[in-house]
Amino acid sequence: MKVILISHTPDAERLVAAAARLCYAEAPPEDFLAALTDEEIREFLGHLLRVEHFSPFEHASFTFAVSNVSRALTHELVRHRIASYSQRSQRHLNESGFASVTPPSIAENPEASRVFADALETLEQGYAELLRLGVPREDARFLLPNACVSRILVTMNARSLHNFFALRCCARAQWEIRELARQMLALAREAAPGLFLLAGPPCETHGVCHEGKFSCGRLGEV
Amino acid sequence: MKVILISHTPDAERLVAAAARLCYAEAPPEDFLAALTDEEIREFLGHLLRVEHFSPFEHASFTFAVSNVSRALTHELVRHRIASYSQRSQRHLNESGFASVTPPSIAENPEASRVFADALETLEQGYAELLRLGVPREDARFLLPNACVSRILVTMNARSLHNFFALRCCARAQWEIRELARQMLALAREAAPGLFLLAGPPCETHGVCHEGKFSCGRLGEV
Amino acid sequence: MKVILISHTPDAERLVAAAARLCYAEAPPEDFLAALTDEEIREFLGHLLRVEHFSPFEHASFTFAVSNVSRALTHELVRHRIASYSQRSQRHLNESGFASVTPPSIAENPEASRVFADALETLEQGYAELLRLGVPREDARFLLPNACVSRILVTMNARSLHNFFALRCCARAQWEIRELARQMLALAREAAPGLFLLAGPPCETHGVCHEGKFSCGRLGEV
Amino acid sequence: MKVILISHTPDAERLVAAAARLCYAEAPPEDFLAALTDEEIREFLGHLLRVEHFSPFEHASFTFAVSNVSRALTHELVRHRIASYSQRSQRHLNESGFASVTPPSIAENPEASRVFADALETLEQGYAELLRLGVPREDARFLLPNACVSRILVTMNARSLHNFFALRCCARAQWEIRELARQMLALAREAAPGLFLLAGPPCETHGVCHEGKFSCGRLGEV
Repeated sequence: MKVILISHTPDAERLVAAAARLCYAEAPPEDFLAALTDEEIREFLGHLLRVEHFSPFEHASFTFAVSNVSRALTHELVRHRIASYSQRSQRHLNESGFASVTPPSIAENPEASRVFADALETLEQGYAELLRLGVPREDARFLLPNACVSRILVTMNARSLHNFFALRCCARAQWEIRELARQMLALAREAAPGLFLLAGPPCETHGVCHEGKFSCGRLGEV
Repeated sequence: MKVILISHTPDAERLVAAAARLCYAEAPPEDFLAALTDEEIREFLGHLLRVEHFSPFEHASFTFAVSNVSRALTHELVRHRIASYSQRSQRHLNESGFASVTPPSIAENPEASRVFADALETLEQGYAELLRLGVPREDARFLLPNACVSRILVTMNARSLHNFFALRCCARAQWEIRELARQMLALAREAAPGLFLLAGPPCETHGVCHEGKFSCGRLGEV
Repeated sequence: MKVILISHTPDAERLVAAAARLCYAEAPPEDFLAALTDEEIREFLGHLLRVEHFSPFEHASFTFAVSNVSRALTHELVRHRIASYSQRSQRHLNESGFASVTPPSIAENPEASRVFADALETLEQGYAELLRLGVPREDARFLLPNACVSRILVTMNARSLHNFFALRCCARAQWEIRELARQMLALAREAAPGLFLLAGPPCETHGVCHEGKFSCGRLGEV
Repeated sequence: MKVILISHTPDAERLVAAAARLCYAEAPPEDFLAALTDEEIREFLGHLLRVEHFSPFEHASFTFAVSNVSRALTHELVRHRIASYSQRSQRHLNESGFASVTPPSIAENPEASRVFADALETLEQGYAELLRLGVPREDARFLLPNACVSRILVTMNARSLHNFFALRCCARAQWEIRELARQMLALAREAAPGLFLLAGPPCETHGVCHEGKFSCGRLGEV
């Protein structure tokens, strides 16, 4: 998995703070943008996160280039609807010699690894043969497995990212998308720390669990 | 592919017409609901479709149960974001002995059919063997191909459906999702004809083509 | 204020339960629709609400005809974006002799009531005079006050309604939209009790408060 | 009216072009970002606009600070749901001595101007008096007219902006929001010309009219 933050709203923390201020202040927003000190911004954002006033966070957007992830992951990912996606097309591109994601539970098990590798090799040969037989790419891809890697550009605003992190950084999320969420959070936090000081699963941000009483084993008193 | 319209807004045409009337009429909406004749409704809806005033169409929703479609299709389908989905989970269910969708270009080619069937059989055995070796379902599914059938419940409002039909009934859409769109349109039209009198690809509804000058071969003068 | 539930998904509880089942069950959804007993449905929905698995609730939609509410309210209401609206147009309709909403804090204060009534009368005369002078309706309406009544058709799915109730049934919400939310919740609960057993402000549903430690005065131990 | 583009995705044209390329190209997106020449980008974006492939345009966002616009305008504006808003709160701020927007049809008519000014003065005095009588701001605002100015921060992605411009730059749109749309388009075009080369009402972009056969008087052969 490779995750790059390729673009984001410049000076995102200042913009979100100015947006929140606008609702309750006399001065025009262009004034806030200049007037707020970094410390005021950080403190104000912390307050917004604690009281869950997320709407101003929508003004800041983050674009991630994600590659070497499975189609299993992307099918889950695109279910997040307040987001924008551009994905590598299996319909139009030649996937001969495709790379695959191997789940750790398989990688750690020599016999499972062999079964997995053999099946993938058969698939790959089958895919290539279908193309040779004149089957269009959009139909030959019916043989491609969930393990087949994909590439996707994802843009979410900071509010939608908070929702994504709450759901997908959870220990009960599937391991691959959890790793994606972990990397995205690290990158977003580096670019705009104030927007993501408090972010992640509800057990970490609010000490509560919706998945059934900390069924992952984490203690409730975090 | 099996497509059933399992639920929809009752008396949907009347509701949409009443919503549109509300914006420009003196009487309250509960009065329109009773007062409009079927003919007035049909005529009014025809006008709204022609001038593309789609917002009142959002008040009517349609829920389809779709089964025996490939995961290739569902990955495309869920990219439509103004919609609601509930999909069979490959992560949690045992897919041993899964059924598959065979593209016509493969079915019609005996040699390709053999290649396809052989590869799927290898996959199926590989999947079952991974489970026997203790690999969790959510990881064994990395072997499952795009051809593997899925089941999904889809709810869209009539405006979102119009967008879906415009894009997916087009001759340039992939054949499987085009067939889904065709069946959904037939079912929606049967349930609420006035809402879908004019629906489908832009060449049919407006005599224009966005895909590049009727590149499918259809004549421009439809 | 007058709120009527003029349409909703038929047998909405059964549909939502079937949608949730679909994800984890072997049988096709059309079978669930018939097979689930009312008690199973109610119990299952209660579970979904407790663990906050809201996505299947999106399949059920509710349409409300709302009248005799102020434009102050509708401007707040339409900020809820996962919803569909058709509103009476001040731009195109003649609002001469418009009715108004009087806030309780004004109605209970005789002097304030007089000030309010006098100002509204001046406005009404001004509006009528502008029309007589040939000013178009869309411009004369610049005199119309927030108090001026409006009419709006609102459709939300059950998930969006849950969000609406959580925010707008809160004691800190503005009184008029809170009253609207209260009536909408009562109507939705009557039509589909299982979908809204647990609904309303977070203090009632989860014993927590995001508005700042039960600043409304309610005790935290609800 | 004052409209400032206070923030936007940096190098937005390059990002959108890279997103569109990603779907059909072998190289990873971070490579496109560097490799595409400005001319290639501009040409590619022109192609996307002509064939209406708008999805990659979603990756670029634009934030406008809008002030000195009427509440009539903002109530229309916030009906655009694929957008983010932060608006000055009439509920919490003191609007004594509020400024107003005067429609041209009134400004140009001396008698209408007098009626309008007199009514607004009465309103302003009434509002101030209600506050003096202890009426809360959130209730005194029921007297505030549509003409009362507001301030709002608007973020839309480039796809949503295209939809906004198509609807609101139309000669049939209300004059104030049309002026807002005109200024937003000019600012967006200056910041990212390639994204908005072809933008505005359908008569200008595609030579068609949905409002009823060029009912504004414009000739059909534009």
